Amino acid sequence: MTDRRFMRRAIELATAGIGNVSPNPAVGAVLVRDGRIIGEGYHREYGGPHAETDCIRDARVRGEDPRGAVMYCTLEPCSFRSPTKHNPPCTESVIEAGITRMIIAARDPNPAVAGCGVQALRTAGIQTSCGLMEDQVLTLNESYFLSTAVRRPQVHLKWAQSLNGRIARAEGGKTPISGPEALRHSHGLRATVDAILVGRATVELDNPSLTARHGVSPARQPLRVVLDPSLRTPISSQLFQDQAAKTLILSGALNDESLTQAAALKRLGVEIVQLPVQEEGDFDPADILDALYERGIRSVLVEGGSVTHTGFLAAGLWDRLTVYIGPTLLEGNVLAPDAPGPSIATVAHEVDVLGDTVAITGMNPNTRRVLDGLKWETAPQPQTAGCVLPQEEAHVHRSST
Amino acid sequence: MTDRRFMRRAIELATAGIGNVSPNPAVGAVLVRDGRIIGEGYHREYGGPHAETDCIRDARVRGEDPRGAVMYCTLEPCSFRSPTKHNPPCTESVIEAGITRMIIAARDPNPAVAGCGVQALRTAGIQTSCGLMEDQVLTLNESYFLSTAVRRPQVHLKWAQSLNGRIARAEGGKTPISGPEALRHSHGLRATVDAILVGRATVELDNPSLTARHGVSPARQPLRVVLDPSLRTPISSQLFQDQAAKTLILSGALNDESLTQAAALKRLGVEIVQLPVQEEGDFDPADILDALYERGIRSVLVEGGSVTHTGFLAAGLWDRLTVYIGPTLLEGNVLAPDAPGPSIATVAHEVDVLGDTVAITGMNPNTRRVLDGLKWETAPQPQTAGCVLPQEEAHVHRSST
Repeated sequence: MTDRRFMRRAIELATAGIGNVSPNPAVGAVLVRDGRIIGEGYHREYGGPHAETDCIRDARVRGEDPRGAVMYCTLEPCSFRSPTKHNPPCTESVIEAGITRMIIAARDPNPAVAGCGVQALRTAGIQTSCGLMEDQVLTLNESYFLSTAVRRPQVHLKWAQSLNGRIARAEGGKTPISGPEALRHSHGLRATVDAILVGRATVELDNPSLTARHGVSPARQPLRVVLDPSLRTPISSQLFQDQAAKTLILSGALNDESLTQAAALKRLGVEIVQLPVQEEGDFDPADILDALYERGIRSVLVEGGSVTHTGFLAAGLWDRLTVYIGPTLLEGNVLAPDAPGPSIATVAHEVDVLGDTVAITGMNPNTRRVLDGLKWETAPQPQTAGCVLPQEEAHVHRSST
Repeated sequence: MTDRRFMRRAIELATAGIGNVSPNPAVGAVLVRDGRIIGEGYHREYGGPHAETDCIRDARVRGEDPRGAVMYCTLEPCSFRSPTKHNPPCTESVIEAGITRMIIAARDPNPAVAGCGVQALRTAGIQTSCGLMEDQVLTLNESYFLSTAVRRPQVHLKWAQSLNGRIARAEGGKTPISGPEALRHSHGLRATVDAILVGRATVELDNPSLTARHGVSPARQPLRVVLDPSLRTPISSQLFQDQAAKTLILSGALNDESLTQAAALKRLGVEIVQLPVQEEGDFDPADILDALYERGIRSVLVEGGSVTHTGFLAAGLWDRLTVYIGPTLLEGNVLAPDAPGPSIATVAHEVDVLGDTVAITGMNPNTRRVLDGLKWETAPQPQTAGCVLPQEEAHVHRSST
């Protein structure tokens, strides 16, 4: 169980990077000799050294020699160079340091690595074993693994409803459905994503600030994204005015009228990206996710409203959902999102009791299948010829500037 | 904390009577001398001896003398005689046994007792203290306390819904929403009530047996109640045919056609009670509860359908609700019950995680207020003149035949 103890420590170290490293994954590493930790490291921020290098450096700072030591690393070391990646391949650092054994949790799904890291280590004579605590690392970096595999951001849907499935009172007006503990929990969700997305109606009805607060203070606030095909969200809305985070509007084609609105928004620092509008007057969720992915967004929390949620549900473009169920009963037909299509049984349920509110989180079974397919056991083994040699250029997901 | 230990034991003993004593409450008693239990008793079944008598008898069987002992009793001893009550007043048994001190948890809300039991004990010189672990006893006998106070059965609403608040698929057909653990939990609810009630449409759609099974086996199956204003539930329905429990149909006035149906149902042992039908074609929930209360029903589990639930919610005639939330997403507009009127914040939430299903149980705040009003602290003290003397006749709730 010693192996698990050291890997647990590496995962702990990796966790410290969450929120600072996207679109890279959070990675931790530990160097061990004679059952004693001689170095610890993690990927601290996007653009900074990778965990393996950070760990070797730490050992040297401590006056320890990494030669002959064992490295526990949460992710397969990278094995390629590219013009947009200033870090050398970690496999080289590991080999040069004289490390003789590597214990790796998860496979890097980046096509430029994807088994080639392990191959490079083994070719250099380093005894390498894979898969220890793989599930924990997949969960820790779920958005990295998933978005790398499906080439779109991880989509997390979130809403609050009454005990009888209503999301607001029929007659309108704000109805607080969930309590303060639930509020903190939902701000915790915000703090872990790259972007928060809402439809125009939600901005008009709730005038939210869409920042992560209430006890959480992420290193960087998520991008705020508003779906506004006709570009008519009031410019006085809080999230355009407060400068608390970057804001992006997805709009349709601009006309004479909306060009004026666009100019005013741009003066406030709001970015506008134009997308094709469908016949029904809304965007194709796939187009939305493409636009976000191109900007480096690897995870998005979709906060509503109901029509926006239903759009993602109908398209099957969602990975997790969290439903907050408050201790109230409401009248009328302002309903939780509809789920068009055959009934979906979600998997991987988490239940959090938050004061008098209950949060249920489920995972899309298709997402579960994608993530399971990334494991060492199921993922295809690289052909020797298929691995990019370190000196060649490669398509880069995990890059450092 | 010794007092609490003995009262906890008395509550434990009381629990064994649950399911066998309604419309009486479940009561337990413990006799203690010199810190040692010398007798234990409980109200075992409706019509049998009360807990106090059972406990004194147990002490004597053990060769112990109750004189000078302390009795811990979960409920205030009864203090009246009546022609329908063959047990003597427990206050007399306690006094005659020479018990010198009584520790009582809860006040008996039966107007024939209601503080007079304590008064009788004190008048006889027995040192009597009240309120120890009162909340636990109120919860244990919630249906007794509540139904005695409001003179109708306790109403427990129960339904299962998807994560997005739908109770079935739009296109019909059975959709199992919750898993096997939730099934066991819901049968556990059935086992604790006097009656289970459904609307006609639920019988036609689901053809349920409405018995408590799946790991629970109550001493007596709850009465099955079907709301069928026009008396047209198919006679082939399982619950009319299986003889697994008594069945009662609440119907409107019978006409020539329904008289034939009624005769056939009666041949199967089904009882029919006629109630006035409202303009909308359904019953007034207050009439339903009156009819059940008259039959000695002190608790009813309302299992649906949605229209039936909404009727009780709209009338404010409900005390608890349990919502099972399964790990599915469903399409369409077959919705969880509507809750007409101002939004209701339920209280006293219990959350049970049952495999991949979550059960949330809330209490009507009005019910909470009624129960709180029954405590020693808030309930009115009896006037000496107001207490019925043992030899007088009294209105009886807690009776033994």
